[in-house]
Amino acid sequence: MTYCVAMCLDEGLVCLSDSRTNAGVDHINTFRKMIVFERPGDRVVVLMSAGNLAITQAVVNLLREHANVQDHESVWSAATMFECARMVGDTVRRVYQRDAAALKEFGVDFNASFILCGQIDNEPPRLFQIYAAGNFIEASEDTPYFQIGESKYGKPIIDRVVSSATSLDEAAKCALISMDSTIRSNLSVGLPLDLLVYRRDQLKVARHVSIDWDNPYFNMIHSQWGASLRRVFGELPDPNWATWPEGAAAPCVPQPAEGKDAA
Amino acid sequence: MTYCVAMCLDEGLVCLSDSRTNAGVDHINTFRKMIVFERPGDRVVVLMSAGNLAITQAVVNLLREHANVQDHESVWSAATMFECARMVGDTVRRVYQRDAAALKEFGVDFNASFILCGQIDNEPPRLFQIYAAGNFIEASEDTPYFQIGESKYGKPIIDRVVSSATSLDEAAKCALISMDSTIRSNLSVGLPLDLLVYRRDQLKVARHVSIDWDNPYFNMIHSQWGASLRRVFGELPDPNWATWPEGAAAPCVPQPAEGKDAA
Repeated sequence: MTYCVAMCLDEGLVCLSDSRTNAGVDHINTFRKMIVFERPGDRVVVLMSAGNLAITQAVVNLLREHANVQDHESVWSAATMFECARMVGDTVRRVYQRDAAALKEFGVDFNASFILCGQIDNEPPRLFQIYAAGNFIEASEDTPYFQIGESKYGKPIIDRVVSSATSLDEAAKCALISMDSTIRSNLSVGLPLDLLVYRRDQLKVARHVSIDWDNPYFNMIHSQWGASLRRVFGELPDPNWATWPEGAAAPCVPQPAEGKDAA
Repeated sequence: MTYCVAMCLDEGLVCLSDSRTNAGVDHINTFRKMIVFERPGDRVVVLMSAGNLAITQAVVNLLREHANVQDHESVWSAATMFECARMVGDTVRRVYQRDAAALKEFGVDFNASFILCGQIDNEPPRLFQIYAAGNFIEASEDTPYFQIGESKYGKPIIDRVVSSATSLDEAAKCALISMDSTIRSNLSVGLPLDLLVYRRDQLKVARHVSIDWDNPYFNMIHSQWGASLRRVFGELPDPNWATWPEGAAAPCVPQPAEGKDAA
């Protein structure tokens, strides 16, 4: 599996992806899930992917091929992030038309999802999630983040901490904690990580780093967050049963009445 | 959906279940997911269920029916928890044989899972997870807990806090935090909760309470845990980018070379 998260905040964008892929537990590899299109002064566009690796690589390769040809319609030529999202969706649909029937013969679902975010020219930064069907949704102030892949383990901390007003540094910290919780609870998500921070209206990438186990900050998160959790867990009082209200508890099964015989 | 968790600790057992069921978002109901078989001095057996409500109710009803008939083979007559687990597994298989084909006609999977735990006579307390196929696994000292239903949101806190040596009160607190995180992140899990605490070798239920929004302890957990998390989150330092090692970041897509034309 994979875990990717992106947040669209007042200050800009934070993207984080892992790089573990697996087909069963004995075929685990490292593949980057994030690609970046940057033309300083004009646009920064980030695409992250999760799902069947053959499908997501096909989509990414088609987008790269088009981006590599001058004057071809591509991420470089899109006038808005919405146009980019439509382009990614259309590309997913092309791959679907080519591959889905053959995959189905082998019982393989057409499973792929994408996070696309960035800023083009004088648009504000925007964040989209694109589904396997090629349709997509956009983040809003109320829901400023999207996750794809193994998203559930790392969702509670984001729900509790992140809003549009969160700073980029705090959002990066939260994304790394969310990733650490996911890695601890799920074998199929693993380092190295790709972290990208984009500051609103700069039209160039602010930070773009690869994080492995030799990264002191991620190691600090990894050891300190668990310790902090255990500390505040210990500080919360244990239940004092004597003070609990009597509630209607779940049903107890009565024992059989005398004389109600099996025979 | 549902979320149920049970922990098998040196001191005994802790079980927690929610009571939300839904078939779509406009058909949400309250059904208890926990039933208890208690014969003081002899046995306490707790069964929790998740999945298709018609299937899990059929399994539970069959088990209750048998338990209600004197001298019938049932949870009351099982000599060990292993025998109980086999009985539940066999009952799941009977329901499968009766219903699975008809469900398949309507495109409905045979989806059900169960947690069974308890203590019978002079056996130690034991904990099992039973699958839709009727097979099952048992918890061990290394993996002292099982979850069914919407399990991922609430897994990281258990992974970080609970071991076999955790006290019953702390385990109950952790289960409630795990449930609170799940409820916050997933609409389909909801109150009231059923919490059962069993102290090893007592052969009777220690605590068995229903928890609704009027429960002061759960309300304290609900408000304090989020606040505590935000506090320790704030205490962890933000990334100091100046000190970060240069890593090989994810690929940037190059802009097309001059002269490489689309035409």
